[in-house]
Amino acid sequence: MTVFEPRNPNWERDVRAIFAAQTAMTTLAASPLELAPGRVALEAPFAAAFAQHDGFMHAGVATTLMDSACGGAAFTLMPPGCGVLTAELKASYLAPATGARFRAEGRVLKPGRTLTFCEGRAFAIAEDGTETLIATLSATMMTMRREG
Amino acid sequence: MTVFEPRNPNWERDVRAIFAAQTAMTTLAASPLELAPGRVALEAPFAAAFAQHDGFMHAGVATTLMDSACGGAAFTLMPPGCGVLTAELKASYLAPATGARFRAEGRVLKPGRTLTFCEGRAFAIAEDGTETLIATLSATMMTMRREG
Amino acid sequence: MTVFEPRNPNWERDVRAIFAAQTAMTTLAASPLELAPGRVALEAPFAAAFAQHDGFMHAGVATTLMDSACGGAAFTLMPPGCGVLTAELKASYLAPATGARFRAEGRVLKPGRTLTFCEGRAFAIAEDGTETLIATLSATMMTMRREG
Amino acid sequence: MTVFEPRNPNWERDVRAIFAAQTAMTTLAASPLELAPGRVALEAPFAAAFAQHDGFMHAGVATTLMDSACGGAAFTLMPPGCGVLTAELKASYLAPATGARFRAEGRVLKPGRTLTFCEGRAFAIAEDGTETLIATLSATMMTMRREG
Repeated sequence: MTVFEPRNPNWERDVRAIFAAQTAMTTLAASPLELAPGRVALEAPFAAAFAQHDGFMHAGVATTLMDSACGGAAFTLMPPGCGVLTAELKASYLAPATGARFRAEGRVLKPGRTLTFCEGRAFAIAEDGTETLIATLSATMMTMRREG
Repeated sequence: MTVFEPRNPNWERDVRAIFAAQTAMTTLAASPLELAPGRVALEAPFAAAFAQHDGFMHAGVATTLMDSACGGAAFTLMPPGCGVLTAELKASYLAPATGARFRAEGRVLKPGRTLTFCEGRAFAIAEDGTETLIATLSATMMTMRREG
Repeated sequence: MTVFEPRNPNWERDVRAIFAAQTAMTTLAASPLELAPGRVALEAPFAAAFAQHDGFMHAGVATTLMDSACGGAAFTLMPPGCGVLTAELKASYLAPATGARFRAEGRVLKPGRTLTFCEGRAFAIAEDGTETLIATLSATMMTMRREG
Repeated sequence: MTVFEPRNPNWERDVRAIFAAQTAMTTLAASPLELAPGRVALEAPFAAAFAQHDGFMHAGVATTLMDSACGGAAFTLMPPGCGVLTAELKASYLAPATGARFRAEGRVLKPGRTLTFCEGRAFAIAEDGTETLIATLSATMMTMRREG
């Protein structure tokens, strides 16, 4: 696995700050589980308020969690003072989103000056701890520089 | 524009029912605005509870709305008694999700026995009614048939 | 349809030049059919040398043509002296690629300083002129600026 | 890594046969390098006939190779007598396609009765053997059953 060198000495503090500032994360009760340069894992409980008509978690929730994990992972490698934006993402839904809680992992494949290519995974975790891969993500994150 | 012939005489009642049964739609205060065979439009207000760290609506929300609009659009063309599932989706984020409310449109490009190819658009609507295209979606929906 | 104002007064000459310089286009016998700011259409004959095991044109060919059409469309709106690169693309294959020839259309949805979001379509054209939509594309193109 | 049990006792013979029947593979001088249930690797030389305007291999070539590797990987797990079709794919281009030859790897993430989710990687290989990850793929493959 590629080891990345962060350019922001305060990357951990700063990535925690952007997660804390996302009301979407609070609303989904998602919290960072693991933070490393180029890697972020989030966890969130099943929420009845975000179900589909079939009772499974809405595909949009796994997507939101994977997107946030990948955005955070990209952000850990950006220079200080930058912002991160999702340019595009593609998610595949391998299995129904059913479980007690969900874990979303994001990692950087290739950081760049402007674009950072990332990959995500989402797992459903049953009451007994069994994990199932339910979705994958391929995303492009963009570095936003503050103007002079 | 292609005109599709629904195979379910009660397509409108049934698609309204699946939207009503999605707690994710209720939570986002999303409601169907337009329903036609192969086409669905949804609208939802800006919700401070689903923001990103930059104060814009989380990319996951526009994605969830476009996914639901496309799933609904695909469902209008399915035979009675089937279910609909998102196999995969790809979203591009053209502009920041900022506005008073959002409209998501989904339409079927090609319905099939098993797979239905759909396309979505999301627009931000300002207080003064100005609309901005903020995101596009390309998605594959799957028909779930009840066994036996 | 959005009308875009090109920033390169020689956009037409320059986009013809990049198509002429792509040996992949020559090898596929693809030629620009239509050029406008933010829009390109290409046409290529069916080529037995690029078939799949089932005798249809390889999905990669429709993808290559749509990618080139979108790259060209993005390029028409770039400032003089820039290069264009595909950051990512997503293609959906709606119908088998069978026909006498193929037309690929690319158009810009949103041009940007660094990223240009594009959309493509591929059509199979039968001997009798009947057209079938066989594939769609959603792609992100990147502007490459010369240093110095 | 998941180990998959093939349902076709002649999977290796059959997957070799579909590669041999693809003229696109012959034209690109691509050959299967590695075949296992749920995994295929292909290799092809750099071909001046498939370049972009910048002299790099056309993005469509890496995409075609990854698509064929993923289609082959999915096919190894299908029951005898089925066909395989790409429903959709998404490719990200991490680095320019320059090198002496290219390797494309495809692997199955989740096989299903109708849909098989796959993941691909493409590497450029320099004269001195150095490998660079140049592209990734996320694809949905479809099982085509012969009608009774």
